[in-house]
Amino acid sequence: MTKQFDVLGIGNAIVDVLSKVEDQFLLTNEIPKGSMQIIDEKTAQHLYSTMGAGIEISGGSAANTAVGVAQLGGQAAFFGKIKTDQLGEVFRHDITASNVTFPTQDATTGPETARSFILVTPDGERTMNTFLGACVEFGPQDIDVDTVKASKVTYMEGFLWDPEQAKKAFVKAAQIAREANRDVSLSLSDSFCVDRHRESFLELVKRDIDILFANEDEIKSLYQVDTFDDALQAVRQDCKIAALTRSSAGSVIVSPNEIHIVEAETIDKVVDTTGAGDLFAAGFLAAYTKNKDLVSCARLGSMAAAEVISHIGARPQANLLEMAQVKGLL
Amino acid sequence: MTKQFDVLGIGNAIVDVLSKVEDQFLLTNEIPKGSMQIIDEKTAQHLYSTMGAGIEISGGSAANTAVGVAQLGGQAAFFGKIKTDQLGEVFRHDITASNVTFPTQDATTGPETARSFILVTPDGERTMNTFLGACVEFGPQDIDVDTVKASKVTYMEGFLWDPEQAKKAFVKAAQIAREANRDVSLSLSDSFCVDRHRESFLELVKRDIDILFANEDEIKSLYQVDTFDDALQAVRQDCKIAALTRSSAGSVIVSPNEIHIVEAETIDKVVDTTGAGDLFAAGFLAAYTKNKDLVSCARLGSMAAAEVISHIGARPQANLLEMAQVKGLL
Repeated sequence: MTKQFDVLGIGNAIVDVLSKVEDQFLLTNEIPKGSMQIIDEKTAQHLYSTMGAGIEISGGSAANTAVGVAQLGGQAAFFGKIKTDQLGEVFRHDITASNVTFPTQDATTGPETARSFILVTPDGERTMNTFLGACVEFGPQDIDVDTVKASKVTYMEGFLWDPEQAKKAFVKAAQIAREANRDVSLSLSDSFCVDRHRESFLELVKRDIDILFANEDEIKSLYQVDTFDDALQAVRQDCKIAALTRSSAGSVIVSPNEIHIVEAETIDKVVDTTGAGDLFAAGFLAAYTKNKDLVSCARLGSMAAAEVISHIGARPQANLLEMAQVKGLL
Repeated sequence: MTKQFDVLGIGNAIVDVLSKVEDQFLLTNEIPKGSMQIIDEKTAQHLYSTMGAGIEISGGSAANTAVGVAQLGGQAAFFGKIKTDQLGEVFRHDITASNVTFPTQDATTGPETARSFILVTPDGERTMNTFLGACVEFGPQDIDVDTVKASKVTYMEGFLWDPEQAKKAFVKAAQIAREANRDVSLSLSDSFCVDRHRESFLELVKRDIDILFANEDEIKSLYQVDTFDDALQAVRQDCKIAALTRSSAGSVIVSPNEIHIVEAETIDKVVDTTGAGDLFAAGFLAAYTKNKDLVSCARLGSMAAAEVISHIGARPQANLLEMAQVKGLL
């Protein structure tokens, strides 16, 4: 029998390069604070040559979520494309060492493993500049049918809509999952990403998505409404579950028949918000796939998000499972 | 006129791969806690495949010192060998972005850029496992004579004694510096390193070294004595200045005519001791090359060391110059 998974994450396989900058650096380079922008190789080289020293650490939105699920004791898998190079080796090592099954074959030709220059301002906010690199080689051929069928939830990041073939891979995986009566989950990823792909995201949400993750800006952008409440009413009609995060204001979980408002965890100091949404999704899905109620799912999401924003890097550094058990959440 | 430097660091050019481990992992792999051991490629692969996810961050003892000097407002240069590969690019970017002049040419063939697997136990202690990689290509041909002559202090790490050609490079640089009436400084690096090279270190200390940096274990190992005081009396006769560090017990600075006992800075929590000695040397030399008295040198060393052990990674994350100015040390 094929190994069974709680969560399969599909996303861009990225090594993050984190560097502290002053707000002025973003202004000078005309980079919208808090966003994720796609940059080409030339821009990547220019940005790298002007930014300060960095820290390399495996990232990628859905990859971070898969790692979080595994660290919470869930069975997790990930699909994404790296190249056979040193940063690719780093990515593969880290995700594998975190107990995530990672069957996707490396690209041996073409662009280098993707990296995202993540500029962290003194307030802990992160602004991402992503060179997609080998991610453009990811396509439908990388969707391992058996793994999708064997996963309770197939979770995909909206950023997959940026590389053309990855979008096709997403649609293929969603179809397989639906036909196998599995849940399909999407994170909207970023409000600029929603702007780039609004029509197809809306179609997807209405047709294929069981569990939607979005923050306030993203969900308002999706429905092009001015208030959070308007977005809430709209999304209730479209998804089985929508988990809407509002930073320190906590999260709102809606389904056609339920609505829950759950507090955020308080933390001493926000060091780096990278991965907050990814780890919220990890906690939520780790509880969901253990058949916990929606409030417990949101509370576990908040706990995991709080841990990841208290340090540099988008992957957990503490023992999440133990923390969850102490809180009685798992 | 050639650019003038306060400190030229010469050392192994290394990318650190930091990972948290439990003490049991060191026991299982028979790795002496707190040491730096040299590992071959096969051992490196084995260790990497069994250790957890990591964080990549530029390191190298003398390189960390050069970066610290630059961040304290000094003019700094570094010699060390990377390969033209992705981790080499990371190393070059980071040291250059930190305002350190780095003239050494990349190796284009041979082993990959060096890395050190740094295992950080829950007490913040680091245990280093270094694959020297491209560092074995560093040799006398890489000693740029003009830069040595233009540097007030040529600072070298004891780890250079491990790759054979680097040792020759060290001796060449020391000779050039002495002939130019410049100071030559050595860090003993590690007590196991002292064990490996005791005789030649002793000879070097007596003949060539103006400023010696060592921690308690290293200086006791060098003179093969049981007490710190015995080591102290011995080194007084051999060097113009010896700066001896004793972790939380502070430092002792000795010269033939002076002795000073300087408190360590207190910090809230030791997160990762990697780079403590390197940054002590950076602070000390940054003050020394500004003609500060020995106590001020030690105090600036303590300040820089305290900053670097309060976070992950061996290079400063705070604004050291501003901190030093607030304390009236620069």
